[in-house]
Amino acid sequence: MRIAVLNGPSLDLLGIREPELYGHETLADIEHRLRDVASELGVEVEFAQRNGEGELVECIHALRGRAQGALINAGAYTHTSLALRDAFAAVGVPFVEVHLTNIFAREPERRHSMLASGALAVLCGFGSSGYELALRGLVSRLAARV
Amino acid sequence: MRIAVLNGPSLDLLGIREPELYGHETLADIEHRLRDVASELGVEVEFAQRNGEGELVECIHALRGRAQGALINAGAYTHTSLALRDAFAAVGVPFVEVHLTNIFAREPERRHSMLASGALAVLCGFGSSGYELALRGLVSRLAARV
Amino acid sequence: MRIAVLNGPSLDLLGIREPELYGHETLADIEHRLRDVASELGVEVEFAQRNGEGELVECIHALRGRAQGALINAGAYTHTSLALRDAFAAVGVPFVEVHLTNIFAREPERRHSMLASGALAVLCGFGSSGYELALRGLVSRLAARV
Amino acid sequence: MRIAVLNGPSLDLLGIREPELYGHETLADIEHRLRDVASELGVEVEFAQRNGEGELVECIHALRGRAQGALINAGAYTHTSLALRDAFAAVGVPFVEVHLTNIFAREPERRHSMLASGALAVLCGFGSSGYELALRGLVSRLAARV
Amino acid sequence: MRIAVLNGPSLDLLGIREPELYGHETLADIEHRLRDVASELGVEVEFAQRNGEGELVECIHALRGRAQGALINAGAYTHTSLALRDAFAAVGVPFVEVHLTNIFAREPERRHSMLASGALAVLCGFGSSGYELALRGLVSRLAARV
Amino acid sequence: MRIAVLNGPSLDLLGIREPELYGHETLADIEHRLRDVASELGVEVEFAQRNGEGELVECIHALRGRAQGALINAGAYTHTSLALRDAFAAVGVPFVEVHLTNIFAREPERRHSMLASGALAVLCGFGSSGYELALRGLVSRLAARV
Amino acid sequence: MRIAVLNGPSLDLLGIREPELYGHETLADIEHRLRDVASELGVEVEFAQRNGEGELVECIHALRGRAQGALINAGAYTHTSLALRDAFAAVGVPFVEVHLTNIFAREPERRHSMLASGALAVLCGFGSSGYELALRGLVSRLAARV
Amino acid sequence: MRIAVLNGPSLDLLGIREPELYGHETLADIEHRLRDVASELGVEVEFAQRNGEGELVECIHALRGRAQGALINAGAYTHTSLALRDAFAAVGVPFVEVHLTNIFAREPERRHSMLASGALAVLCGFGSSGYELALRGLVSRLAARV
Amino acid sequence: MRIAVLNGPSLDLLGIREPELYGHETLADIEHRLRDVASELGVEVEFAQRNGEGELVECIHALRGRAQGALINAGAYTHTSLALRDAFAAVGVPFVEVHLTNIFAREPERRHSMLASGALAVLCGFGSSGYELALRGLVSRLAARV
Amino acid sequence: MRIAVLNGPSLDLLGIREPELYGHETLADIEHRLRDVASELGVEVEFAQRNGEGELVECIHALRGRAQGALINAGAYTHTSLALRDAFAAVGVPFVEVHLTNIFAREPERRHSMLASGALAVLCGFGSSGYELALRGLVSRLAARV
Amino acid sequence: MRIAVLNGPSLDLLGIREPELYGHETLADIEHRLRDVASELGVEVEFAQRNGEGELVECIHALRGRAQGALINAGAYTHTSLALRDAFAAVGVPFVEVHLTNIFAREPERRHSMLASGALAVLCGFGSSGYELALRGLVSRLAARV
Amino acid sequence: MRIAVLNGPSLDLLGIREPELYGHETLADIEHRLRDVASELGVEVEFAQRNGEGELVECIHALRGRAQGALINAGAYTHTSLALRDAFAAVGVPFVEVHLTNIFAREPERRHSMLASGALAVLCGFGSSGYELALRGLVSRLAARV
Repeated sequence: MRIAVLNGPSLDLLGIREPELYGHETLADIEHRLRDVASELGVEVEFAQRNGEGELVECIHALRGRAQGALINAGAYTHTSLALRDAFAAVGVPFVEVHLTNIFAREPERRHSMLASGALAVLCGFGSSGYELALRGLVSRLAARV
Repeated sequence: MRIAVLNGPSLDLLGIREPELYGHETLADIEHRLRDVASELGVEVEFAQRNGEGELVECIHALRGRAQGALINAGAYTHTSLALRDAFAAVGVPFVEVHLTNIFAREPERRHSMLASGALAVLCGFGSSGYELALRGLVSRLAARV
Repeated sequence: MRIAVLNGPSLDLLGIREPELYGHETLADIEHRLRDVASELGVEVEFAQRNGEGELVECIHALRGRAQGALINAGAYTHTSLALRDAFAAVGVPFVEVHLTNIFAREPERRHSMLASGALAVLCGFGSSGYELALRGLVSRLAARV
Repeated sequence: MRIAVLNGPSLDLLGIREPELYGHETLADIEHRLRDVASELGVEVEFAQRNGEGELVECIHALRGRAQGALINAGAYTHTSLALRDAFAAVGVPFVEVHLTNIFAREPERRHSMLASGALAVLCGFGSSGYELALRGLVSRLAARV
Repeated sequence: MRIAVLNGPSLDLLGIREPELYGHETLADIEHRLRDVASELGVEVEFAQRNGEGELVECIHALRGRAQGALINAGAYTHTSLALRDAFAAVGVPFVEVHLTNIFAREPERRHSMLASGALAVLCGFGSSGYELALRGLVSRLAARV
Repeated sequence: MRIAVLNGPSLDLLGIREPELYGHETLADIEHRLRDVASELGVEVEFAQRNGEGELVECIHALRGRAQGALINAGAYTHTSLALRDAFAAVGVPFVEVHLTNIFAREPERRHSMLASGALAVLCGFGSSGYELALRGLVSRLAARV
Repeated sequence: MRIAVLNGPSLDLLGIREPELYGHETLADIEHRLRDVASELGVEVEFAQRNGEGELVECIHALRGRAQGALINAGAYTHTSLALRDAFAAVGVPFVEVHLTNIFAREPERRHSMLASGALAVLCGFGSSGYELALRGLVSRLAARV
Repeated sequence: MRIAVLNGPSLDLLGIREPELYGHETLADIEHRLRDVASELGVEVEFAQRNGEGELVECIHALRGRAQGALINAGAYTHTSLALRDAFAAVGVPFVEVHLTNIFAREPERRHSMLASGALAVLCGFGSSGYELALRGLVSRLAARV
Repeated sequence: MRIAVLNGPSLDLLGIREPELYGHETLADIEHRLRDVASELGVEVEFAQRNGEGELVECIHALRGRAQGALINAGAYTHTSLALRDAFAAVGVPFVEVHLTNIFAREPERRHSMLASGALAVLCGFGSSGYELALRGLVSRLAARV
Repeated sequence: MRIAVLNGPSLDLLGIREPELYGHETLADIEHRLRDVASELGVEVEFAQRNGEGELVECIHALRGRAQGALINAGAYTHTSLALRDAFAAVGVPFVEVHLTNIFAREPERRHSMLASGALAVLCGFGSSGYELALRGLVSRLAARV
Repeated sequence: MRIAVLNGPSLDLLGIREPELYGHETLADIEHRLRDVASELGVEVEFAQRNGEGELVECIHALRGRAQGALINAGAYTHTSLALRDAFAAVGVPFVEVHLTNIFAREPERRHSMLASGALAVLCGFGSSGYELALRGLVSRLAARV
Repeated sequence: MRIAVLNGPSLDLLGIREPELYGHETLADIEHRLRDVASELGVEVEFAQRNGEGELVECIHALRGRAQGALINAGAYTHTSLALRDAFAAVGVPFVEVHLTNIFAREPERRHSMLASGALAVLCGFGSSGYELALRGLVSRLAARV
């Protein structure tokens, strides 16, 4: 089983970017830990980070026939992009929406997700360990389907 | 007379993508049929599909001085992009907005188009034959202007 | 195959009525052209125009068992009438909503259609040739169903 | 005591019209049963069905000095007509609003009644037996007034 | 100069209808007084009252080429009808909107007029003498145009 | 067949509580009359009144496997409780929503029911006889299902 | 009988101020004509124009025990001032709200009046002759009260 | 470290309650699995389920000085209760909000949580394994604080 | 004269609960001071605190025929409970709404009270001395009624 | 300690103005009683009433360096003035907002205060004794700060 | 060329007023610097500050025929006054709206300007140097018009 | 000190694009003038224009550690992009938002900026000279920080 982990705009700056909000770990740190969890769970993981909405759409398209599920932290596009939700529907890949911070405790414009109604599950506020939880949860949900 | 036919995100997956909604024809099938209609109408057609909003903006810019009109199925960007409407205004090319499905019978977030107030005409729900109708209608409108 | 073409309030004044918005063709001109297209497509067309909502409801009821589809330009009732949508549902006749002008580029109260969620397809802004396009599109959609 | 039973647009098609929603009984069947209940209750009933809002207004006007109460299933006009509520106020006839289906479990545009604030009572979701309940309830309320 | 005076639903019951709100004068009384004012002003007046929206549309159509202006008390249709405003635009006849009561001091659903943005002037709350004032005002406005 | 009749907060004070709104009958009076109707209809009835939302949830839970339907007058919880609707869904017991007064003619905060979209039917404004009508209607609906 | 005529901010510039909207007559011209009408009606008129909301409040206070009614064109304060409505209620003087233009055909922020729910009557769109009509109407309404 | 696991109304019926939505596992099954995870993580867990809002408030109060964190699936109270959020703030116990289903893909009234802005983290849509993930995530967040 | 002082959820934790917001005094401290004021005013006071909405409803019911007025700090239920307002109306006991903090300077969800429209008076932001002021004010208002 | 007591538009008419709402006491009566309370509390009071928003701003400015706190009944400006809140912030004087009536039980436009979010405390519905309570409460709050 | 610089309520307290927001410069300091810039640009400047809306209206009226443009920092009136925008339209003087702080990063009630739609340009967040920039910009825009 | 000047979609067409709105100067003209101002101010400027949101995000990322501030005219993305605001926050570079036209005097969808709450300052309506003013203002604000 192959799971993709997608990250949206400015997540390449994790560790540097507003660390009081997003923490000090970099995306590489998170990926490193996720590989360990993946190997524990017996799944393969692949990673991508893009700053453009269209490029993320294409990352999602590329999952077709290759990945069984995805985690996505779409960053700011969570709140403004319908194209990402459509792209997941187009390739039929189930996904979990992840956020480092609790988006419901932030500014009003971050409290609504345009992705969530298409997601299998949503998780936010666990910091970088949210990725690991999401991976465990997604694998468990996909396993239950078989 | 040259007419551009522009397609937005995930329309490259037509035929595969949620066929119960969007049908089984591919974008290539649609383009093939449109060429026949274009030749019947004595106009030239050119095609583009892009997954990125900025790339679609640039496709529209490229029409300047080269095309007399455009069809656009902006997909999910229909509902979130002001930049596409601005781009058409910037180059002064009249356009028709096309959708495969009847967007007014779908989720609330698809019932408002940010493009429509700048369009010459709007058409949705005719499936793939909507492109052909839109082309006929656009050519007829442009002919009437002369 | 029989297709009904229904027109709502003040469309009997087409040609005279705000011609800078609605054009100089009369409803009779439009019907004349539609008969030609109908004959090209091998379908029968019948026409009605009513100024009353209840009378339009009865026109729709009269389609039951006699027409396979309908075009409707409900004029102002587009924005205020649920009874028309209900009448189409009651007789089970698929319909296409047509408008001469691009209603999405007009006053706010014209930007929402109460009919559209029940329609097969919607088309606006093509002027009088919109009827012809709608007829072609409807016949093509109905043919595809068989 | 005379009670009028008024029905709005497309209710003449009951039995045929979307029977999975509205059931298989015709308006004549309902009237037949209502006459039995009326006779049990010792009241007279009279029936009318109109597809036009103005015609319903006139039916209501005609109740003046002749009926002591009314049941109305205004169909789609429930949600769009202030004229019906005004007409009841104008003739001073108390009325009960009836719907076959539970309008609060349907599309958003059916969840608000423009009649209800002027009604004596409202009842929905009991199918055709709702008319009978409404008649019993209205007669009981009117009897209590004397 | 000919001025039409149009009245909407339930205004045929004036004098009887909720007299604490609408007063004790009948529509005939009002028309009688208006004829006197008209004759003072040297204009002709004609009267119509209809309970149906479509019938009012047709009354308005009938003004074309015959009346130079109109007063309308559209009753409940004031708040729900776009077709009346469209009909006036279609025949190009300037009109004044009249209400017996101050609609801005009544229920919320009566505080918005769908006619008003198309009217020359609006007047409410003067009781039956509002018709007379509206006639004077309309004639004065039309005279100023010549 | 067993039908439960549930009452929410402050309904224990019926007869005393704002009698100009809710009437002079006590809940015991209503229950007495309902038993007569139940016996006429050949069904058993049981009664409960609770002032707490959680206690009402538990009353609903207790219906599971014991009652075939329920009437509920949830009083103020009608407008604020999702837990009651969920409880009915959890035990799969169909219910009719009853109100003594016409809630649509009262303050705005009483015009929306959080229960109604889960109800089989809704009825309000018939005073205490509304319970009897609701019982008849519910039994008739349940009988029709068999 | 004494009637006050009050004018709000920037109405001292009438005749100069956006004449395509407000006309070429000055406030003095309007007052001159109003005196003639007043003398015809056998009432006294007095005039005031203030640019400050507080000063208008004080003008209204000064009417107490001295004027039987008032006309007010509150200009921009129409849309933002509750203090003016309160001041009229405080002194118990009935008033008519007047506007030169049809405020319902202008920008959205001008379509709601904070004064209107406290007024006896409202009138707009008759240009400067609206004052005269309002005076006639007010006197007629006050006479009818005696 | 002691972690409380709180459940709200109708969660005592898990396994029976709408299993197509909420699954076939009972709350006891979930608790059983959670104990295993707790023991793996070296923390103690305690469980409570209440149908009443006030009783849940008291469960939360009881955590003071005894638990270092909590999971809560507040069921329907998620969307209507401010008292639960206040209770957590009052005792200063950090909590994670858990839902079995993806609340953002359900009815509009379930898409807003009144608890979430006070939560450490939120997680939904993972079915019963969501509790386990939430426990892991909470322990990891609390450990990071020390 | 007997006055009841009712407190809602989490007010049993006063003194401990977010003291930077709610202060360091306990409910017992407040009650102690209130008894002194009551004795100065020659009235009896009784106290209750409940965490459940239904239990508060029952406390209010218990006032009937025993107390002449009440103070209530309904805590979070202020913003979500209609049942408390109904309970006061049911027993006909006038009440004053008290809050320790200025609720209008806090989160949006605390700025609207569902109790306030039924209250005699409302007071917030005076900290614990608000209870004393409310008692004085209530007694003074009740005395003025006699 | 010096406390200012400010009153807004039309409060100079207290006693005369809608006495069924505002009572029969004049502002002078209220000031008289307040002086007694002030002397009991050992503070100085000064009074002002202004009908203009700008004049009230200047009264507030004048408090700078001279008063330690203020009561304000801003009358209608409560609902429309941001300038008053700004003025208090500019001079850094804490204030209590007072209303004679319970503004939350009146028209919708009176239910929102633009001042309240800047106030120390808010109090309404106690009639004229509200001023006295507010003075006691303010002095007690200021004393607690020292 | 003469340019007026107008300031609204509480701006006379600049330097003292919430200096962490508005800075330590007084209005006199700002005027001093503006005179230097004006002399560099070869224009005359004049200054006014008023706390009353009506007085600002009169300051604007006084510009007629004397000033070619204006800067205005209307303070709190920015968000509540339509009269100021009307006054500028009445005298036909183009103006630039200036704010010391970035109003879009403050409380919601400060994020909408009632002046802005009538302004030539808007500028905020530059502190006191915003006046200087606005003067340069206005002069440059006016020069471009000649 | 280095300042970046970023431009969004369709700004590459300045001079050609709707010149009646945006003027006849090209972006190169503006850059040329800005270099002169920059050299006067002793700062370095660099320029970028991108049509894609993701590409603009990357331009902003590239400022990290290299530029001390930025001007941005985000064009249509102003109204739809949260990612740009996030990107500035991620790199910690203060920015000024610039628009050629007064966006508050245009269509409703252009009146809200998603960038503005993160900006240091905002400026619009000065045409191409707005860039120069923004540069002066930004440099002055940054200088004041040192």
